[in-house]
Amino acid sequence: MRTTTGWQATGPTALRRTPLERRDLRPDDIAVRVDYCGVCHTDLHALHAFGQRTEAPLVPGHEFTGVVTGTGSRVTAFSVGDHVAVGNIVDSCGVCDMCEAGQENFCHSFPTLTYGGTDRQDGSTTLGGYSREYVVRDAFAYALPSGLDPAATAPLMCAGVTVWEPLRSLGVGPGSRVAVAGLGGLGHLAVKMAVALGATTTVISRTHEKRDDALKLGAHDLIASTDAEQMAAARDTFDVVIDTISAQHDLAPYLKLVAMDGTLSLVGYLGPLTVEAMDLLVGRKKLSSAGSGGRPATAEMLQFCADHNIGADIEVLPSSQVETALDRLRRNDVRYRFVLDMSDLD
Amino acid sequence: MRTTTGWQATGPTALRRTPLERRDLRPDDIAVRVDYCGVCHTDLHALHAFGQRTEAPLVPGHEFTGVVTGTGSRVTAFSVGDHVAVGNIVDSCGVCDMCEAGQENFCHSFPTLTYGGTDRQDGSTTLGGYSREYVVRDAFAYALPSGLDPAATAPLMCAGVTVWEPLRSLGVGPGSRVAVAGLGGLGHLAVKMAVALGATTTVISRTHEKRDDALKLGAHDLIASTDAEQMAAARDTFDVVIDTISAQHDLAPYLKLVAMDGTLSLVGYLGPLTVEAMDLLVGRKKLSSAGSGGRPATAEMLQFCADHNIGADIEVLPSSQVETALDRLRRNDVRYRFVLDMSDLD
Repeated sequence: MRTTTGWQATGPTALRRTPLERRDLRPDDIAVRVDYCGVCHTDLHALHAFGQRTEAPLVPGHEFTGVVTGTGSRVTAFSVGDHVAVGNIVDSCGVCDMCEAGQENFCHSFPTLTYGGTDRQDGSTTLGGYSREYVVRDAFAYALPSGLDPAATAPLMCAGVTVWEPLRSLGVGPGSRVAVAGLGGLGHLAVKMAVALGATTTVISRTHEKRDDALKLGAHDLIASTDAEQMAAARDTFDVVIDTISAQHDLAPYLKLVAMDGTLSLVGYLGPLTVEAMDLLVGRKKLSSAGSGGRPATAEMLQFCADHNIGADIEVLPSSQVETALDRLRRNDVRYRFVLDMSDLD
Repeated sequence: MRTTTGWQATGPTALRRTPLERRDLRPDDIAVRVDYCGVCHTDLHALHAFGQRTEAPLVPGHEFTGVVTGTGSRVTAFSVGDHVAVGNIVDSCGVCDMCEAGQENFCHSFPTLTYGGTDRQDGSTTLGGYSREYVVRDAFAYALPSGLDPAATAPLMCAGVTVWEPLRSLGVGPGSRVAVAGLGGLGHLAVKMAVALGATTTVISRTHEKRDDALKLGAHDLIASTDAEQMAAARDTFDVVIDTISAQHDLAPYLKLVAMDGTLSLVGYLGPLTVEAMDLLVGRKKLSSAGSGGRPATAEMLQFCADHNIGADIEVLPSSQVETALDRLRRNDVRYRFVLDMSDLD
């Protein structure tokens, strides 16, 4: 076994610096020195659940970048010193229809999650990227395209690909009319990507407060969801609405914004949804959901971001301030993503 | 005023033969002698609601065929003696985006329903096709293409166009894999149309009982929703699932059948829907709904049915047996649609 150091949960809001074990490199493994790890809403959910069920160790973190420090005997795609990125899945069956189609995130026997997952070979619980080292199958690490900032790229690996997949699969491009509901970690990346794809892009936010921020990100407009007149005027005008709101909320106002034959794609909230069939029927609208991405889409997204100079807008904190980051994220006090600098774990 | 005779509700399960008034012909009106009127699930809902709120008169019926007996001064599209069909909407604003796009069924100021609607000019409550005469704007009557049987065509005007719209808007054609859940009034027409569009078509029914019927309609297979093994084997295999089940039901088993990037379209049940976001997320599936159609789609559907010799499979009853028809429909005791013969109202 290899040893490293990471931040392990001791309760729903507490993490302790702890020595961690990583597996010895298998032939197709690489060891990664984790330099930057994004702080995702999922981490809050996992910590909350950890408060209820404490049997397995929890080290959060599933969007990180770093440098290769070791390679297994059969690894050819990476060499020591390469900059790489890792997202929220680290393995899949590789043989089902979804894996064959490059949608490992939908693997029929469920992909192995970067933390809180079960390793397919030894059955151990995976420990995440809030640590100085991660060991990962080479197929689930991505070479960092040159030009991308390692810190600002970390959040692309979960938040980024989560909004990239619906934008791409729904055919967003020049001429598309896209609305992004919620301007946080997911939303600000959806805006940057939609704009770069050529779409006319509008932010839907609770108030007008974030208008300047939205325009700075490249959005063409901001609509306040509390402004009934503005919402009514925007009815049926968006081909795609990417709903990044993380709390449970009424979908009806957002479905109203969708144009004929358009789609509302939910990427922020993943619980049970209630909709009125009539809100879908009138205008033949579609409800969809997305989260994470397959290997081809992840690589494509990284290259697109390199080509269009897209990174997350981040606030970097030393990893020792992980609890502060989580607490402030809980209060939505970040524009737009915290990234932990792991160098203080050396 | 003109006078005619029809079947007016006196309670949630009772209708009485009653003299009815029809408006004098406006310049763009035609008078239609109603020959055949389909009995739709909506009629059951309307009668049920009538039991609760009895203020307005209720004459059901919104899918009928007949012969033009009079034309307004500006009508050019129809002449006395023409065979016509009328569906569930008889007017719309004509100027909103949806009307301009030929989707009068989604009119922003709501289309005028064939019964239980409010006439846009005189504010009266519309009375439906369970009657010997109907007066309708020429724009909402459709010439019956030659070759179509008037009785078997009546149900096309609501049930038919309701399944036609999602089949067309979701791009069903040769090579498509279509499942039709529920084999009733809507379902049997969805099967005939999907087959005629060139799709490989599978019926999903509660049991294997309707297998022979399904194959006779042209379906290639039947899957029993209670057969766990069969349902598991069919996972992720249909580009489009048309769900015609009229009662509230769990959507999860049907979403599982939808292939990557495919759509579940609900046409039978129009209340509140609950779905798990994860059931949409895994496979990037879409949930949609459809009902009724616009004028261009209705005309297109009629011509398609004429070209492919498609009519509803019907049981014709004299209109005096309307209560029997409704009662048996309530118990799903019809293959697949009742049509009332209105000639006994003379």
